[in-house]
Amino acid sequence: MTYCVGLYLNDGIVLLADSRTNAGVDSIATFGKLHVWEQPGDRALALCTAGNLALSQAVVTLLRDGFIGEDGKGHDLMQAATMFEAAGIVGSAIREVARRDGEGLKQQGLEPSLSMLLGGQIAGRPHALYMLYYAGNFIRATEDTPFLQIGEIKYGKPILDRVIQPDMPLLQAAKCALVSMDSTLRSNISVGLPLDLVILRQGEQRFTLRKRLTEEDAYFSSIRGLWGEGLRKVFGTIPDPDWGL
Amino acid sequence: MTYCVGLYLNDGIVLLADSRTNAGVDSIATFGKLHVWEQPGDRALALCTAGNLALSQAVVTLLRDGFIGEDGKGHDLMQAATMFEAAGIVGSAIREVARRDGEGLKQQGLEPSLSMLLGGQIAGRPHALYMLYYAGNFIRATEDTPFLQIGEIKYGKPILDRVIQPDMPLLQAAKCALVSMDSTLRSNISVGLPLDLVILRQGEQRFTLRKRLTEEDAYFSSIRGLWGEGLRKVFGTIPDPDWGL
Repeated sequence: MTYCVGLYLNDGIVLLADSRTNAGVDSIATFGKLHVWEQPGDRALALCTAGNLALSQAVVTLLRDGFIGEDGKGHDLMQAATMFEAAGIVGSAIREVARRDGEGLKQQGLEPSLSMLLGGQIAGRPHALYMLYYAGNFIRATEDTPFLQIGEIKYGKPILDRVIQPDMPLLQAAKCALVSMDSTLRSNISVGLPLDLVILRQGEQRFTLRKRLTEEDAYFSSIRGLWGEGLRKVFGTIPDPDWGL
Repeated sequence: MTYCVGLYLNDGIVLLADSRTNAGVDSIATFGKLHVWEQPGDRALALCTAGNLALSQAVVTLLRDGFIGEDGKGHDLMQAATMFEAAGIVGSAIREVARRDGEGLKQQGLEPSLSMLLGGQIAGRPHALYMLYYAGNFIRATEDTPFLQIGEIKYGKPILDRVIQPDMPLLQAAKCALVSMDSTLRSNISVGLPLDLVILRQGEQRFTLRKRLTEEDAYFSSIRGLWGEGLRKVFGTIPDPDWGL
């Protein structure tokens, strides 16, 4: 399983991904799910993947090496003029992999699955965050819905629903992403550390932060303790019902 | 969609269910999903249902009217000698309904779905909480895992994971069930009010409380406000990361 969350803020973009992959409970491994394309000053793009690992690795490889799309033209993320065009290139790569491998999976009784988050900025254009589906189509985060999630999304959604606002500072938003991840880790053991995090400040076209958080990370450990303790404390401050039992 | 949660505590049982039913977003209705069988001093049983409404109504009707099971014998929840036997009767009713209607649903391309929580106590026997599956089989809550959920279970699980302990007082546990329900209502609009709640104090074989909570319920409204506010406050007290950005 996977959990990735992307935040689209006035100040920039935050993307956070876990790194656990499993094929049954007896086949657990660590694979990074956050991939970056960066040319400082020109562009900074980050892609998070969820779903079938073979499919998502194939998509990332096509995007790294360049590929010929459905339209017979070469595609290269480093040449995309806008984030919309970049999302279209990722979508084309997904469709190309679906064409190659999708039918084979179905013949084995497996439903091909793949979803992605693409966030970033290209010089002279606004920053943007997209979510892509297996059909290669995509939606964009907006001020009304400033976060997008893929994978095991439900455990970590309540805190996002309550806290994320487009005008949050980037570090505070990153903290919220980590709390959301903590709730997911706590409730689903198929989502696991280490975590990969990127922060992109809008207007800079380079990653302000690229960080891997392991079990040893003191800040994430402190969040895990403080959040659990804080939840229990808030729960304690709410009066019990006065139902006269 | 549905969300029901059952708590198995040293002091007794708490069961909470929403009441929203939907067949597509343009067909929303209210149907109670919590059903009780009570003979004060002898037994108090409560059943929560999730899944296909036609199937769950049929099961409840069989249980109300009595029915002939696979073994050719009559079954009556009011005659069960133990909670284990009662769970077996509910399981037989599920299988009977599956036999009648399951194939017809499959022929329409619909996967039959049904799950239930059964909690209660029969005189002279311990109180118990069971979760039943579409196959008619069931598991029992224990001290290690003192809560069971059916339906849209993920949004409301993190608070249960962190707070529920077998030695909690009943009212405090009911408060936790309401917080868990609030997180679910907040994140999935196909789960909705009113809520049905029962509390059974062990040893009494009658419901200490049977309550319907509507939009107007002052206590539930206060929980919704206090919990959201408390979460944001805890979030605010956790220091932002010191990553020198």
